[in-house]
Amino acid sequence: YAGRERVEFNVLLKVDCGYHRCGINPDSMNAMRVAEAIAREPDLNFLGILTHAGHAYNAYDVEEIRHIARREQEVMVEFSKRLRDHGIEVETVSIGSTPTMALTESMMKDITEIRPGNYVFYDWTQVKLGSCVIDDCALTVLSSVVGQYEHHTVIDAGATALSKDLGATHITRGDGFGQIYLGYESGDLLDASILSLSQEHGKVRMRSSRKNRTMRPGDLLRILPNHSCLTANLHDHYYVVREGTVVDKWRVRHERSVQ
Amino acid sequence: YAGRERVEFNVLLKVDCGYHRCGINPDSMNAMRVAEAIAREPDLNFLGILTHAGHAYNAYDVEEIRHIARREQEVMVEFSKRLRDHGIEVETVSIGSTPTMALTESMMKDITEIRPGNYVFYDWTQVKLGSCVIDDCALTVLSSVVGQYEHHTVIDAGATALSKDLGATHITRGDGFGQIYLGYESGDLLDASILSLSQEHGKVRMRSSRKNRTMRPGDLLRILPNHSCLTANLHDHYYVVREGTVVDKWRVRHERSVQ
Repeated sequence: YAGRERVEFNVLLKVDCGYHRCGINPDSMNAMRVAEAIAREPDLNFLGILTHAGHAYNAYDVEEIRHIARREQEVMVEFSKRLRDHGIEVETVSIGSTPTMALTESMMKDITEIRPGNYVFYDWTQVKLGSCVIDDCALTVLSSVVGQYEHHTVIDAGATALSKDLGATHITRGDGFGQIYLGYESGDLLDASILSLSQEHGKVRMRSSRKNRTMRPGDLLRILPNHSCLTANLHDHYYVVREGTVVDKWRVRHERSVQ
Repeated sequence: YAGRERVEFNVLLKVDCGYHRCGINPDSMNAMRVAEAIAREPDLNFLGILTHAGHAYNAYDVEEIRHIARREQEVMVEFSKRLRDHGIEVETVSIGSTPTMALTESMMKDITEIRPGNYVFYDWTQVKLGSCVIDDCALTVLSSVVGQYEHHTVIDAGATALSKDLGATHITRGDGFGQIYLGYESGDLLDASILSLSQEHGKVRMRSSRKNRTMRPGDLLRILPNHSCLTANLHDHYYVVREGTVVDKWRVRHERSVQ
């Protein structure tokens, strides 16, 4: 295609820095061969390398994430040096996952780009991982209480409002499908669990059963989602709130990202 | 509001037929009182009762679903009779969940409406529950292989294409995030599991490791989702396929259902 249309494609080679989802193993024989093949191809423009340290989401503590963050940079800087030693020009050395970027204290000089995504909003998963504190979280879902029963409360936020992401389940088991703010400004959470989600309903249970009765149909609850990326993807607009007042409404997109 | 604007609201009373998510317990003292209060209110028009037997999704076999389906009808017909005996007119007696409606062989004469939703597409969850067979499933996600590794294959369908719904996990544990068709027309499935989903990536593992190598980047895979409702909700268009050919493209909506 490139040849026929005389289009030049810019190419970044994806490197596996330990996540083992995608990308080339930089220590394999293949890694250098593939980079050389791209660099040699006249219609391809070898820009450099990129990686995503997604395994940071599986870490048990901040120290483990810091270790992954250091390796993310080391793997990429070492590989870029080897490529340059082979005469391949490497303009871009791109890294980034929200947990590693949030906990990185210094950037090695050869890193040219970072690509954390979740950090624009953060979420409960990042709080549990230690990437941020609750005050840093900027995306919430406003939901109404639609039913009050003896042992549970029903809200009108279900899987179509929050997504069914359970977060980093190895460290959040039992945390449910989102956290409910008691006071958003104070960052205090209600001692309750969003037990289950069906399509349009959420089932909430207070951990202290007496308090369950304090919620009334019509009450508005502000929910901190487990995964802001998937939650944001379910909505067409963001309501922009400043000091408790809606100051703007932003349209997210005209067409869904997935066609 | 109704009083001031002289608007009459039609009201259906939601009944809990055993799901215990929403609705009034028809055997409680409250049930009759609430119905009477609505019927008495001049601005409210008591239309009747409705229920959703969502607990059918938690059943272990077809017999259990049939039992729930019978109870769903009995509870509603009995309650509608008691309401009528109290002088309350009941026009609508509405039931419906896809598993119960798929397995109901006869409808009691007082049932006036059924509201199954998932049945327009069905999905893997319904297959496992016994509501349908694979041939009945009408919604699939077309995905490309984007990476082929020693122990897994990466596809470009992630949580934004399939949703993170795990289906009826009490009977599908280990089934993963969707099933891959080997032949759509034959209804044969690939002996593979969609192990994990990140935002835009799916990780597939063949159950027989040798076969993993038969997939190549660029190959198109047709995926039967666990939950067609949540999957459909992630897309703007349906491509309508007849005998292997795309014959139409339907726009689902202009605005997202959740604002």
